[in-house]
Amino acid sequence: MDTFSRLESEVRSYCRGWPVLFDKARGSRVYDSSGRGYLDFFAGAGSLNYGHNNPRLKAALLDYLDGDAIVHSLDAHTVAKRDFLSTFEEVVLKPRGLDYKVQFPGPAGTNAVEAALKLARKVSGRETVINFTNSFHGMTLGALAVTGNSVKRGGAGVPLGHAATMPFDNYMDGRTPDFLWLRSLLEDSGSGLDRPAAVIVETVQGEGGVNVASAGWLRGLADLCREYDLLLIVDDIQMGCGRTGPFFSFEEAGIVPDIVTLSKSISGYGLPMALTLFRRDLDVWEPGEHNGTFRGFNPAFLTATAALDTYWRDENLQNETRAKGDLIAERLDAIAAEHAEAGVTTRGRGMARGLVLPGRGEATRVCAEAFERGLLMETSGPEDEVAKLLPPLTTSVAELEEGLEILAESVRAVVRAPQPA
Amino acid sequence: MDTFSRLESEVRSYCRGWPVLFDKARGSRVYDSSGRGYLDFFAGAGSLNYGHNNPRLKAALLDYLDGDAIVHSLDAHTVAKRDFLSTFEEVVLKPRGLDYKVQFPGPAGTNAVEAALKLARKVSGRETVINFTNSFHGMTLGALAVTGNSVKRGGAGVPLGHAATMPFDNYMDGRTPDFLWLRSLLEDSGSGLDRPAAVIVETVQGEGGVNVASAGWLRGLADLCREYDLLLIVDDIQMGCGRTGPFFSFEEAGIVPDIVTLSKSISGYGLPMALTLFRRDLDVWEPGEHNGTFRGFNPAFLTATAALDTYWRDENLQNETRAKGDLIAERLDAIAAEHAEAGVTTRGRGMARGLVLPGRGEATRVCAEAFERGLLMETSGPEDEVAKLLPPLTTSVAELEEGLEILAESVRAVVRAPQPA
Amino acid sequence: MDTFSRLESEVRSYCRGWPVLFDKARGSRVYDSSGRGYLDFFAGAGSLNYGHNNPRLKAALLDYLDGDAIVHSLDAHTVAKRDFLSTFEEVVLKPRGLDYKVQFPGPAGTNAVEAALKLARKVSGRETVINFTNSFHGMTLGALAVTGNSVKRGGAGVPLGHAATMPFDNYMDGRTPDFLWLRSLLEDSGSGLDRPAAVIVETVQGEGGVNVASAGWLRGLADLCREYDLLLIVDDIQMGCGRTGPFFSFEEAGIVPDIVTLSKSISGYGLPMALTLFRRDLDVWEPGEHNGTFRGFNPAFLTATAALDTYWRDENLQNETRAKGDLIAERLDAIAAEHAEAGVTTRGRGMARGLVLPGRGEATRVCAEAFERGLLMETSGPEDEVAKLLPPLTTSVAELEEGLEILAESVRAVVRAPQPA
Amino acid sequence: MDTFSRLESEVRSYCRGWPVLFDKARGSRVYDSSGRGYLDFFAGAGSLNYGHNNPRLKAALLDYLDGDAIVHSLDAHTVAKRDFLSTFEEVVLKPRGLDYKVQFPGPAGTNAVEAALKLARKVSGRETVINFTNSFHGMTLGALAVTGNSVKRGGAGVPLGHAATMPFDNYMDGRTPDFLWLRSLLEDSGSGLDRPAAVIVETVQGEGGVNVASAGWLRGLADLCREYDLLLIVDDIQMGCGRTGPFFSFEEAGIVPDIVTLSKSISGYGLPMALTLFRRDLDVWEPGEHNGTFRGFNPAFLTATAALDTYWRDENLQNETRAKGDLIAERLDAIAAEHAEAGVTTRGRGMARGLVLPGRGEATRVCAEAFERGLLMETSGPEDEVAKLLPPLTTSVAELEEGLEILAESVRAVVRAPQPA
Repeated sequence: MDTFSRLESEVRSYCRGWPVLFDKARGSRVYDSSGRGYLDFFAGAGSLNYGHNNPRLKAALLDYLDGDAIVHSLDAHTVAKRDFLSTFEEVVLKPRGLDYKVQFPGPAGTNAVEAALKLARKVSGRETVINFTNSFHGMTLGALAVTGNSVKRGGAGVPLGHAATMPFDNYMDGRTPDFLWLRSLLEDSGSGLDRPAAVIVETVQGEGGVNVASAGWLRGLADLCREYDLLLIVDDIQMGCGRTGPFFSFEEAGIVPDIVTLSKSISGYGLPMALTLFRRDLDVWEPGEHNGTFRGFNPAFLTATAALDTYWRDENLQNETRAKGDLIAERLDAIAAEHAEAGVTTRGRGMARGLVLPGRGEATRVCAEAFERGLLMETSGPEDEVAKLLPPLTTSVAELEEGLEILAESVRAVVRAPQPA
Repeated sequence: MDTFSRLESEVRSYCRGWPVLFDKARGSRVYDSSGRGYLDFFAGAGSLNYGHNNPRLKAALLDYLDGDAIVHSLDAHTVAKRDFLSTFEEVVLKPRGLDYKVQFPGPAGTNAVEAALKLARKVSGRETVINFTNSFHGMTLGALAVTGNSVKRGGAGVPLGHAATMPFDNYMDGRTPDFLWLRSLLEDSGSGLDRPAAVIVETVQGEGGVNVASAGWLRGLADLCREYDLLLIVDDIQMGCGRTGPFFSFEEAGIVPDIVTLSKSISGYGLPMALTLFRRDLDVWEPGEHNGTFRGFNPAFLTATAALDTYWRDENLQNETRAKGDLIAERLDAIAAEHAEAGVTTRGRGMARGLVLPGRGEATRVCAEAFERGLLMETSGPEDEVAKLLPPLTTSVAELEEGLEILAESVRAVVRAPQPA
Repeated sequence: MDTFSRLESEVRSYCRGWPVLFDKARGSRVYDSSGRGYLDFFAGAGSLNYGHNNPRLKAALLDYLDGDAIVHSLDAHTVAKRDFLSTFEEVVLKPRGLDYKVQFPGPAGTNAVEAALKLARKVSGRETVINFTNSFHGMTLGALAVTGNSVKRGGAGVPLGHAATMPFDNYMDGRTPDFLWLRSLLEDSGSGLDRPAAVIVETVQGEGGVNVASAGWLRGLADLCREYDLLLIVDDIQMGCGRTGPFFSFEEAGIVPDIVTLSKSISGYGLPMALTLFRRDLDVWEPGEHNGTFRGFNPAFLTATAALDTYWRDENLQNETRAKGDLIAERLDAIAAEHAEAGVTTRGRGMARGLVLPGRGEATRVCAEAFERGLLMETSGPEDEVAKLLPPLTTSVAELEEGLEILAESVRAVVRAPQPA
Repeated sequence: MDTFSRLESEVRSYCRGWPVLFDKARGSRVYDSSGRGYLDFFAGAGSLNYGHNNPRLKAALLDYLDGDAIVHSLDAHTVAKRDFLSTFEEVVLKPRGLDYKVQFPGPAGTNAVEAALKLARKVSGRETVINFTNSFHGMTLGALAVTGNSVKRGGAGVPLGHAATMPFDNYMDGRTPDFLWLRSLLEDSGSGLDRPAAVIVETVQGEGGVNVASAGWLRGLADLCREYDLLLIVDDIQMGCGRTGPFFSFEEAGIVPDIVTLSKSISGYGLPMALTLFRRDLDVWEPGEHNGTFRGFNPAFLTATAALDTYWRDENLQNETRAKGDLIAERLDAIAAEHAEAGVTTRGRGMARGLVLPGRGEATRVCAEAFERGLLMETSGPEDEVAKLLPPLTTSVAELEEGLEILAESVRAVVRAPQPA
């Protein structure tokens, strides 16, 4: 273990809450080097929607690699990429009536966000991007400038600009009408808000505390963007790929973003991959104007295609996700009701859920208790006040119930326990 | 083929010069869907130093995946990561006397650069970073601000700041002493150069035109950094992992950077992976201050370990690379001599080599001719005036000779041919 | 007249509404070259609070200049500066219990604002400054970044940053509690608002539309600043020097800003002069760290001293200003009542008053009609929707009534007139 | 005296070297409150080219003020402004074939620079402005970003951007050809220099150390600007109005800038005034896009007109300035020769001259010695290593000789004296 403390930077964080050595994983279970299993309600921060080492995807991947197919191709044409593109068109875009072009902006979500911001600025000739309180879009300078978290922002070492933060849905507890502030600024030529290029939004803010934007709020935002000629970017990196039920998290609101970012579970197997999608007429990129080495990691295209083929050619997964989401919500509500006097509440949509523990440090202690009991969860929110549940979508009902029971016990252990001095 | 033009963004570029569908690859050969093979002197822009689907690495990778070992772990402790760290320490760091901490900053080179810049600014409390003409460090806003290429910079859509560009080695053809300008600015409190945090440099500028910094210039730069208390960042993303001979490209100069970035060939198999290394005392990161989803892609750790075990426990690869580099240089010099009247010259170190064709569009046409003859190469330099050779280090002498003969023919076809109207 | 159109930049603006050649001026009357007189309810945008060529100040000035006293001294010690400083201390600072240091930051208001912002950032080590919707602080880049007007901002030619705009008092018509948004951002570590250095505010926004901050709102702001350790800068350039009654416009609210800017009427005679005042413990400037050529324009010190001696050693002016302000308010209310169906309303405090004419272009036409009738007024507000009254404080009641009668007629001429096609 | 230390900010600087109270001034003499006279070789940092209280200008000014003519008019048409404009056209612009429009950008030089930069960016649609090492353009954020001095820059409290510093003439002691670096960057699309809007330059850098640009270098710069479509801004605030001989300091080089800034001596009497001049076709300002309160300070227009009438309708002043400049140069050369072993050298053009004393603190001590002997001078240069001479142009030969003799004695007192411990 001291290999890590001796050699790895102090920046490491998740490992601090899980002081074991992970070794194997299947489905919703992860095993440490001693063979102990853990239910995984973290799922690689939403990157493993189909579970660890999903057997259908694994078979395809092993076959691909075994056959000496192309692994790395930058942006050259490959069979795996062609197959992904045509499957993505057939299974995702066409049925939803989305006439998007697809950009491979690099392997990580933050690359997809950087490409989206660059394109929005290039198309509009404007610079300011509207973001929202408690948004999280990535760690590279462009994405970080539209991210709310002050610790992350502080890491920049330079001022972060060209962004203007607005209140997310219900940020001020209903005490102001939606978009009152943003609309006032946009309508007032003396407001000091330079005309924005775009708005970037998550439909559910995972890292920000599992804050859910209502369908009505999202539609209002889309209308506002149309009215003021702002490009609407939905960052669906964590909430896309079925996390809330439908493939895209914005489908329920009935809106069509101008630009969409995907990453995390798009490869379906934890392989690094990201996409930036945009309306065909916005494709004003010059060849090579945005490039990068790992834009063509073909094993990810292969597993992405297999995931689409396996899970998105019918509505089964989507329906199951909704049902499982309801189950989780019900159990979380019960936990919250049990601890109503402690102010415990719940949030979420689909299989992205949060238990809000307002006592200082409580959510962190709940996750620690859960770990002791064999359940992996992380906290989120600006004060780490939310215990966040992102189980693989393929988690069985029995596993969900097992995990939720552990969670209930963990909350009891913390909320009823005397506070540490 | 029209899948790509219909669905993929116009930003795609390499594929435009290679209008075939790649399917398989082994060692230094890539095969298209019709079965035609191509010698690959591009190597994923330096990401495939050990060739495509290297059999030693492949065996390890298949075994790993087949055993349901951890694929995706964010920054949790895993067996694969531990093994990588301890092997990296044993094989790379210790023998070179480098007491570096290791950060996993995200899967791509640009993530490693962003982390390096953030850390340098955080450590120093200063903002300006010195970069060099024709540098290339990445596409995200922080890395792009220290990148020279005007087309890439133009894609930012916002002004790029907090950087100051200085002349790379021999930029002004020897007409000024090294560092005259930079030293003047640093010494002069009226120079307008705010005291910099750091210098970021490539020892050989691959994308910038295969511009080689001499060992003397690099030592002068390191001395200057020490004298003025600037952190020295070597971006070894393309030139590290043995491209110029030794594991790190800066070893020949005998300098020890404060911060080093690695990516491309570090996984050895084309799997996305990047590292930011830095002096132990610079490790001032707060836990989680820089994070990201794909920092823990364990198959890459596995192949990286296998690559270190296979190629870096002795000096064979390093010595072969030097010898092959000399061979390439010799043949390129012969080509240049054959076309001396056209001003053709050569550049490079180790197995990073360039043939400079000063006629407008010549290098691009040479690469097109080479492709027709079954050789993959790319151009580099601000005007695409350099035909760049980055063959896998494992390319056999026979393959090198085959490729260089194709190149010689291609140059003849272009330089002697009448210019297109 | 075509001298101006031939030689002066198109940037000129007031002259377009007043197409005559002004020549002489006394008290509240300005005369054109034909001898026609105009009542001046504009007063050099608030720079002539004691009227044109005020005889008491004029006598002192002529005597000073005639005696070959020092005119220009940069920041050397002069008799005139000493006298100003000691008089300012005795008449202004001491009676109000203000322990401020005085900086001479340059001759214009924007210089005073730049110095205030620089000092606030230097003291705090932070960069972001909170400003308010429809604020106006100046045209130089630092001041412009905290100014709301989009036309002015657009003139910058570069992005304006390091500022965050918040709603001014009653900006959203009472639909949100005061400071709900700002407080939310300050309290939430995920809000995206980097911790600010300071808040800059006008108590009445003259250029922004004669928007009045209530005493309660100002106290709330001062409390918030104290609570969150933000420096409070009151820009009293237009509203200070008695415009609202007391010497400083913030006195009525009972707050004590950390930094105050003064200009416009501080010299009392229209001579360029500006001050930046700040709490003694904030005086961390290095000698010469902020300099400038016209910081020591001694005739302005002389008239400033004379103005303090003449008008601020007792409470007469202050009391008269309140009474005259009430008179103006009463008459404006009557005009508004007469045109209630057209939505005409009033705003203001002391002798800074506005008549809001919501019909497009109405306020501009009212000012044009007033000019025809011999009254000088300007518009303000983001859409030029406010006819603004800033008569000299020394304007007699008879002159006020004369001007207000002209205004009443002018409004009738516009609001009842058919709209131009 | 303790009025100043008690009440005035620590930012005051000149007064620290001259611990007396100035009271009166005539021509080239300033008198303290005890009646002691000082020869003034500082001239308000070049603002008093025609001496203190110049009698011709004084008479006009007293007459103007006595007659209740307009003092403050913002940008309304006034008789004094008309007269200034037509005289400026007749006496300055027409004879030199300059078809400039005139902007009144505010009362100080830094306002003129801000307007110049804003206009250049607006016209070109680009952001970067090239400036030079040891340039000095002002203290407001836009002007400060193109100023070299690190102490001044440090006062900004925010990063200063949108500028790129290049070496001034002879900056690297002739070791590189002129413009080698700038031209390389402009020609190289990989240089990292975003295409600039403009170049801003002083022909002689007064604050930067009396660094003189040769006519050839200035012509080369003008050619480069034309070749690369960059606007050429000459900041003639200190060197214009005859300081080097001709009205504009760039006349000798035979170049025609696109934009020129003037201030300091333009009013001729130490009254705050500034101008931004530009080619007629660059006048793309919207009305009011750049404004400010003290753009219409009419007494300054009046004295400016009187100064043009008095001194610029023939070539006498210009010729005398050249002759006096030669005299000063001769005497300074003699001083330098006397102290050749101490490395003393001279610089300058016309009546802007500098004596370079390389020993640490020597120039400051020389100025202190000169003050003791009744001569006012300031230091300049990044290390205050230059004793700068800017006597009024109207200084008599006898006064010049008197002052130069004092200077010679002061240098002897310092350079021959033992260094303080």
